[in-house]
Amino acid sequence: MTTAVYVLNGPNLNMLGKREPHLYGRVTLAEVEKRCREKGAELGFDIFFAQSNAEHQLIDWLHQAYEDGAAVVINPAGLSFRSIPLLDALKIIQQPIVEIHVTQIHKRGDIYEHSLVSAVSDVVICGAGVFGYDLALQAMASKLAELA
Amino acid sequence: MTTAVYVLNGPNLNMLGKREPHLYGRVTLAEVEKRCREKGAELGFDIFFAQSNAEHQLIDWLHQAYEDGAAVVINPAGLSFRSIPLLDALKIIQQPIVEIHVTQIHKRGDIYEHSLVSAVSDVVICGAGVFGYDLALQAMASKLAELA
Amino acid sequence: MTTAVYVLNGPNLNMLGKREPHLYGRVTLAEVEKRCREKGAELGFDIFFAQSNAEHQLIDWLHQAYEDGAAVVINPAGLSFRSIPLLDALKIIQQPIVEIHVTQIHKRGDIYEHSLVSAVSDVVICGAGVFGYDLALQAMASKLAELA
Amino acid sequence: MTTAVYVLNGPNLNMLGKREPHLYGRVTLAEVEKRCREKGAELGFDIFFAQSNAEHQLIDWLHQAYEDGAAVVINPAGLSFRSIPLLDALKIIQQPIVEIHVTQIHKRGDIYEHSLVSAVSDVVICGAGVFGYDLALQAMASKLAELA
Amino acid sequence: MTTAVYVLNGPNLNMLGKREPHLYGRVTLAEVEKRCREKGAELGFDIFFAQSNAEHQLIDWLHQAYEDGAAVVINPAGLSFRSIPLLDALKIIQQPIVEIHVTQIHKRGDIYEHSLVSAVSDVVICGAGVFGYDLALQAMASKLAELA
Amino acid sequence: MTTAVYVLNGPNLNMLGKREPHLYGRVTLAEVEKRCREKGAELGFDIFFAQSNAEHQLIDWLHQAYEDGAAVVINPAGLSFRSIPLLDALKIIQQPIVEIHVTQIHKRGDIYEHSLVSAVSDVVICGAGVFGYDLALQAMASKLAELA
Amino acid sequence: MTTAVYVLNGPNLNMLGKREPHLYGRVTLAEVEKRCREKGAELGFDIFFAQSNAEHQLIDWLHQAYEDGAAVVINPAGLSFRSIPLLDALKIIQQPIVEIHVTQIHKRGDIYEHSLVSAVSDVVICGAGVFGYDLALQAMASKLAELA
Amino acid sequence: MTTAVYVLNGPNLNMLGKREPHLYGRVTLAEVEKRCREKGAELGFDIFFAQSNAEHQLIDWLHQAYEDGAAVVINPAGLSFRSIPLLDALKIIQQPIVEIHVTQIHKRGDIYEHSLVSAVSDVVICGAGVFGYDLALQAMASKLAELA
Amino acid sequence: MTTAVYVLNGPNLNMLGKREPHLYGRVTLAEVEKRCREKGAELGFDIFFAQSNAEHQLIDWLHQAYEDGAAVVINPAGLSFRSIPLLDALKIIQQPIVEIHVTQIHKRGDIYEHSLVSAVSDVVICGAGVFGYDLALQAMASKLAELA
Amino acid sequence: MTTAVYVLNGPNLNMLGKREPHLYGRVTLAEVEKRCREKGAELGFDIFFAQSNAEHQLIDWLHQAYEDGAAVVINPAGLSFRSIPLLDALKIIQQPIVEIHVTQIHKRGDIYEHSLVSAVSDVVICGAGVFGYDLALQAMASKLAELA
Amino acid sequence: MTTAVYVLNGPNLNMLGKREPHLYGRVTLAEVEKRCREKGAELGFDIFFAQSNAEHQLIDWLHQAYEDGAAVVINPAGLSFRSIPLLDALKIIQQPIVEIHVTQIHKRGDIYEHSLVSAVSDVVICGAGVFGYDLALQAMASKLAELA
Amino acid sequence: MTTAVYVLNGPNLNMLGKREPHLYGRVTLAEVEKRCREKGAELGFDIFFAQSNAEHQLIDWLHQAYEDGAAVVINPAGLSFRSIPLLDALKIIQQPIVEIHVTQIHKRGDIYEHSLVSAVSDVVICGAGVFGYDLALQAMASKLAELA
Repeated sequence: MTTAVYVLNGPNLNMLGKREPHLYGRVTLAEVEKRCREKGAELGFDIFFAQSNAEHQLIDWLHQAYEDGAAVVINPAGLSFRSIPLLDALKIIQQPIVEIHVTQIHKRGDIYEHSLVSAVSDVVICGAGVFGYDLALQAMASKLAELA
Repeated sequence: MTTAVYVLNGPNLNMLGKREPHLYGRVTLAEVEKRCREKGAELGFDIFFAQSNAEHQLIDWLHQAYEDGAAVVINPAGLSFRSIPLLDALKIIQQPIVEIHVTQIHKRGDIYEHSLVSAVSDVVICGAGVFGYDLALQAMASKLAELA
Repeated sequence: MTTAVYVLNGPNLNMLGKREPHLYGRVTLAEVEKRCREKGAELGFDIFFAQSNAEHQLIDWLHQAYEDGAAVVINPAGLSFRSIPLLDALKIIQQPIVEIHVTQIHKRGDIYEHSLVSAVSDVVICGAGVFGYDLALQAMASKLAELA
Repeated sequence: MTTAVYVLNGPNLNMLGKREPHLYGRVTLAEVEKRCREKGAELGFDIFFAQSNAEHQLIDWLHQAYEDGAAVVINPAGLSFRSIPLLDALKIIQQPIVEIHVTQIHKRGDIYEHSLVSAVSDVVICGAGVFGYDLALQAMASKLAELA
Repeated sequence: MTTAVYVLNGPNLNMLGKREPHLYGRVTLAEVEKRCREKGAELGFDIFFAQSNAEHQLIDWLHQAYEDGAAVVINPAGLSFRSIPLLDALKIIQQPIVEIHVTQIHKRGDIYEHSLVSAVSDVVICGAGVFGYDLALQAMASKLAELA
Repeated sequence: MTTAVYVLNGPNLNMLGKREPHLYGRVTLAEVEKRCREKGAELGFDIFFAQSNAEHQLIDWLHQAYEDGAAVVINPAGLSFRSIPLLDALKIIQQPIVEIHVTQIHKRGDIYEHSLVSAVSDVVICGAGVFGYDLALQAMASKLAELA
Repeated sequence: MTTAVYVLNGPNLNMLGKREPHLYGRVTLAEVEKRCREKGAELGFDIFFAQSNAEHQLIDWLHQAYEDGAAVVINPAGLSFRSIPLLDALKIIQQPIVEIHVTQIHKRGDIYEHSLVSAVSDVVICGAGVFGYDLALQAMASKLAELA
Repeated sequence: MTTAVYVLNGPNLNMLGKREPHLYGRVTLAEVEKRCREKGAELGFDIFFAQSNAEHQLIDWLHQAYEDGAAVVINPAGLSFRSIPLLDALKIIQQPIVEIHVTQIHKRGDIYEHSLVSAVSDVVICGAGVFGYDLALQAMASKLAELA
Repeated sequence: MTTAVYVLNGPNLNMLGKREPHLYGRVTLAEVEKRCREKGAELGFDIFFAQSNAEHQLIDWLHQAYEDGAAVVINPAGLSFRSIPLLDALKIIQQPIVEIHVTQIHKRGDIYEHSLVSAVSDVVICGAGVFGYDLALQAMASKLAELA
Repeated sequence: MTTAVYVLNGPNLNMLGKREPHLYGRVTLAEVEKRCREKGAELGFDIFFAQSNAEHQLIDWLHQAYEDGAAVVINPAGLSFRSIPLLDALKIIQQPIVEIHVTQIHKRGDIYEHSLVSAVSDVVICGAGVFGYDLALQAMASKLAELA
Repeated sequence: MTTAVYVLNGPNLNMLGKREPHLYGRVTLAEVEKRCREKGAELGFDIFFAQSNAEHQLIDWLHQAYEDGAAVVINPAGLSFRSIPLLDALKIIQQPIVEIHVTQIHKRGDIYEHSLVSAVSDVVICGAGVFGYDLALQAMASKLAELA
Repeated sequence: MTTAVYVLNGPNLNMLGKREPHLYGRVTLAEVEKRCREKGAELGFDIFFAQSNAEHQLIDWLHQAYEDGAAVVINPAGLSFRSIPLLDALKIIQQPIVEIHVTQIHKRGDIYEHSLVSAVSDVVICGAGVFGYDLALQAMASKLAELA
């Protein structure tokens, strides 16, 4: 039986590969999606992959994830640091939450230092570049196995 | 003559009844709307009732409320604590503003402690559960009577 | 069967109607008491109504409320913001606590911004003027009904 | 050869002329747009002028500005102070950024004091009223001349 | 016509002359009262002089001062730094308020540094020892003359 | 020759045994007094034991302790954290001061973390339950022996 | 009729063109003065242009500006961030004040982040290089036109 | 035998009578000097009265006061809040220091709240208007009498 | 049956009797050990007494105490204030923990004010000099009796 | 060719499996070592695996890693939050550094919130339990591949 | 070839030998100058030695040092802690800067703790008394040798 | 007669010459030791020179220095900023303490800004590179001469 896993991406991640490439690298989000689908298939996950620049869209997807009983891998990007509505939506989720950041946020300036979202995520992975998505899906498999 | 009153609800309140029920209870937003319409009718209010997960949608409704000369009852939910655009939109309103929170926010963790919106609302009611909407409409009637 | 409800009022509220009337209005505490007794009768409450400028007197009344198994509506006034003895006394109460402020304290200066007492009160109502007492009694009835 | 310049306006600026006129004056956004187009024509700019109450819409326009190789004049309004997603989107821009505020924000209350956006803008103009847009376009011309 | 002036003294000032004499000197409160009565007579003041260790007693005297239309000279002692009820009571006073401290409080440790009461007093005198009472009465005469 | 030792107890301690028993236990203050009198007799102390909810009453007792040349064991309870008048009264005492708390205050929330009174007490004992009074009297004997 | 406008420059600006040229550029203060005189002539201003490394000299010129009923364009340089005497002198001015900084100070380190002077200036322009003086004079013309 | 007393006045006090008259009143510094000379004569003081907008001039006068063995009455004005060089110069003085402020600085905004100079002054008088100079000289006489 | 009690002493306590004797007294650690062994024998404790300047040695002893099911009396000395590894090791202990400080740490400067270790210790005793070890063992007996 | 990878473990991790199992799980460090060796073999790493409760031992191993040109996977445990010597030793390393925490530290209390070590680590993984070591070695392989 | 070295001294240092001698000792600035000239001659330095109480004078000398290509030894005294204009002037210097304080400033109170100037000085020497000038010149020689 | 001087070096200084050479230079600790022995011989010092990565080893050496009546030159390296045990050990020393840092620590990031150790050292020298050891020994000679 496959498990539903939502892989959600926040603001500006549609620009991956173009955006500050010295920080984020040159891989595009389409390529990331492809890798997630492959890795997900391997781990028996039914992947829903999406990106939005809108906080409300991410919240809607989280509500839908709740209805589907899905687990969540999320890269909240710029919403990590201040968005209480997103945090509230994540609190509704009843499956594991894995938070991923492409860059090592704790090495960057002041405002990027403390992710609000980390207060509810079960696993946090940052700094591993886009390979972090691969690690995140493995961590999710490990978390789900613990609960099974 | 009826008075227009906007009852606006912020992010995640569409999940009322499902979301963290130990905190928010089991009443749905549809039921809250029904009670507000009944109470509003009793107090001579013309109720506009709406919910959105999007900050900009709430701002648009507030602009519309300004055009209609309406008073505002608002549960800003997760936007209470950080949204300056919402605060700016509320500053445009020229009728009373009653702020309502289903939970007693001052008892919860750090980030829920201080509502920005309270800097412009005339009345704040929190912790009375969904019955708080009923109290909010009564408080609005009282405020409007003072001004009449 | 009637329920005992203590309505307690803190320092300077004996000056209601005279004290900073642009903030507190022109209704006196005697009138507030009269309204509370009427509303209480309507809701089946046995009202004990009192005011004191002394912290220890309020604490004594709270101990007595504990002995009587009473619920508490309190306007702690200037003691809201710093009094840990009052807070400790409220922690002993085993019935609902409704906190009420005549003014919208979150709109006022720095030192009025954060009520310590809110850390233990079940409901907070502020800014509705003396009509807030009416709302507080209704909120109490609602809280007691939930527990019944 | 004309240069593409995006003139972007954040939340509540559609209410210009109506919103807190003692602070923002009585000129409407349509009139501001007209003046920007005239001044832009004079300076050899190809003006894209837009306003939105939605953070994500502004981010989308900034992505589009990046694709167009455009420079940006932005009045982020209420998003100036807390929006990291907007800040991240501005970091992608590779042409000069001029930030403009109609009011002198440093004179206003606490939460308006520090614009996050200023961390990436090349020029900041505030307090000059809607005439600030005129100055902003001139400053842009000067910045672009330096780079040419 | 004489003017009523309340000279109020807070906690521990009954120990003046015995209490930390290296800081407060050896003059007793009875001697201070005598000097105030003499100076008051000279300036045409009707002096009410009192001391209490109880916050509520000081508040009661301030309410009485309000009823008498009296001006107030106050040495709030240890209540200066944290008592919001006292501050609230002083806000009711409609005549000038002169605050006096026997020691130069700004030279002492952390918790004595900032008097809350100074937010409402018209004149502050500290460090002049008990002679400060004499100066306070003169300052009061000067303030009343300005208003006359 | 016996030494006078005042054992003073602050607000809400009259409720000992009833008040938050998971924190404070089930022993009453009367029983504590009895144990103190026995232990005091054994150590050659002349015990004055008292409790009050009123700050001013505690201050008066401290003044009396000063006149009697007595040492002081004090459980300031909720007054520990904010009362500068109490602190000032303790500064007048010329014998050792032992501070005792029934609970381990440093383990509790924010507002209980830092006792102002500790700035002047010679010994602090907390978390040993009501047995802490026994330890406090022993510590007092030890301190007095050092001075003898 | 010409209007008197003082263009005042603070410490180290005499080194313009030499001082940290990667930040301040290569234009000298003499050239800035020349441009200001030309632009001033065009706008009908009677320009008084001066620079000093001494706080008191700037204060004296501001007093003189007050006597002349002049408006003020000021680049307070290193005095922007800490000088209350300069701030006090600016408060005396009864015509518009335009503050200009050659660099975009909000992008620089901690101590340059918050200009005290901005609390009284009507317009702030920063980051436009020495062209900012030109913009400042235009903004002044606009402000004076509003008042005319 | 007369005692030398320096009465020193800081930045912007030459504008007394003109500067923010709603705060500082309409009396000029020349009139203040005249009153000080009269009061000084009465108290047996040899008055040196001076004002400067320059920190270094005030420091030079303080060095001279040290050489003369003079006492100091100082209104440091805008230098009160940040000037460590002035503070260091005052530390050299070996006679009493009386600090005076025309306005009640503790009632004014943030930056005026805490006078650095108060850390070394023996007496502080604020809010008594220019009559404060009269009180300051009396306080000086009292301090000198204590030392005699 | 005897209970194992570890009495552990942190950095610099080997210097007891020599180190800052005005603060720590003249009793040596060998004498403290002797008293602890005597008191322990009286209370039926099997005492392990040790001191180390090395954080890791203290951690190793705590691990050993865990294996032995022992209770812990600890004077963490300079490690009290910053050592999270020590705190983590204490969290492993499943018997009562009594923390003791020879001096009254809350009376000393800033960095000694807040013991991290207090967040996990059941009882804290400070300021009773080396007699505090005696009190600590008594408190331990009392805590163990509660659990028996 | 194999790459040398040091897997270093800080204080209290020798207690893994015993220590706070609700947080850290029941797997022992010996089992973790076994898994790391297997995974390392698979990825072509030459694993040095060690644990110490002593800061200096970890520093010595890091110096040795530097000499060996090794990469480092480190679980600094309780030293993460305050140890500048460890941070300094990590700065010497010239290969990638992957930081791993068994628990999700950002979800825990105050003192665990901010890892100093994160300022120099290239990848951070936390909350994935002991499976995090597996992920850390994969992340290391990915980082080394980027550099190859 | 001799190197130009400016030895600059800030406010109140003209009082060296008289000023707080328990802190600053009894050597005068004239003697310090003599020693600097001797030591300078020995090291092949062309010494310019000066003192001023005026910030602007020190800035002027620094500008002159810039023109002369000189290195700078500076004792900024009371200007160390707040003067951004002085800091800005030091940033213009292109030779080494050695900062010297006669006292060990880090041991003194709050306001003396953090020297702003240290952000740009290459070497800091404090607490060595006036012998620190000798060390400062040696350190300068060492820095210049590194650059040669 | 020679004086015993301990020259102690903290964590990571064994890597001098290898560690971050752009900051620390290329001189090794062995060479530093050689220079210290030569300079010490010249000044009549009996040098004990040692380095350790272990806090407790440094504490042990300080205890030994106390027994020997030795003076101390210390480069506490990474322990400067957080180690209270080291600070406590230094407080035991009864001869002068000279603190030396190879780099100018006040110019580096946040965590290196404030050395705890400076609260007890008599002289601080930083930024002069390894030549700072030479200056430290000279400063020690000067301090000892003052005491002789």
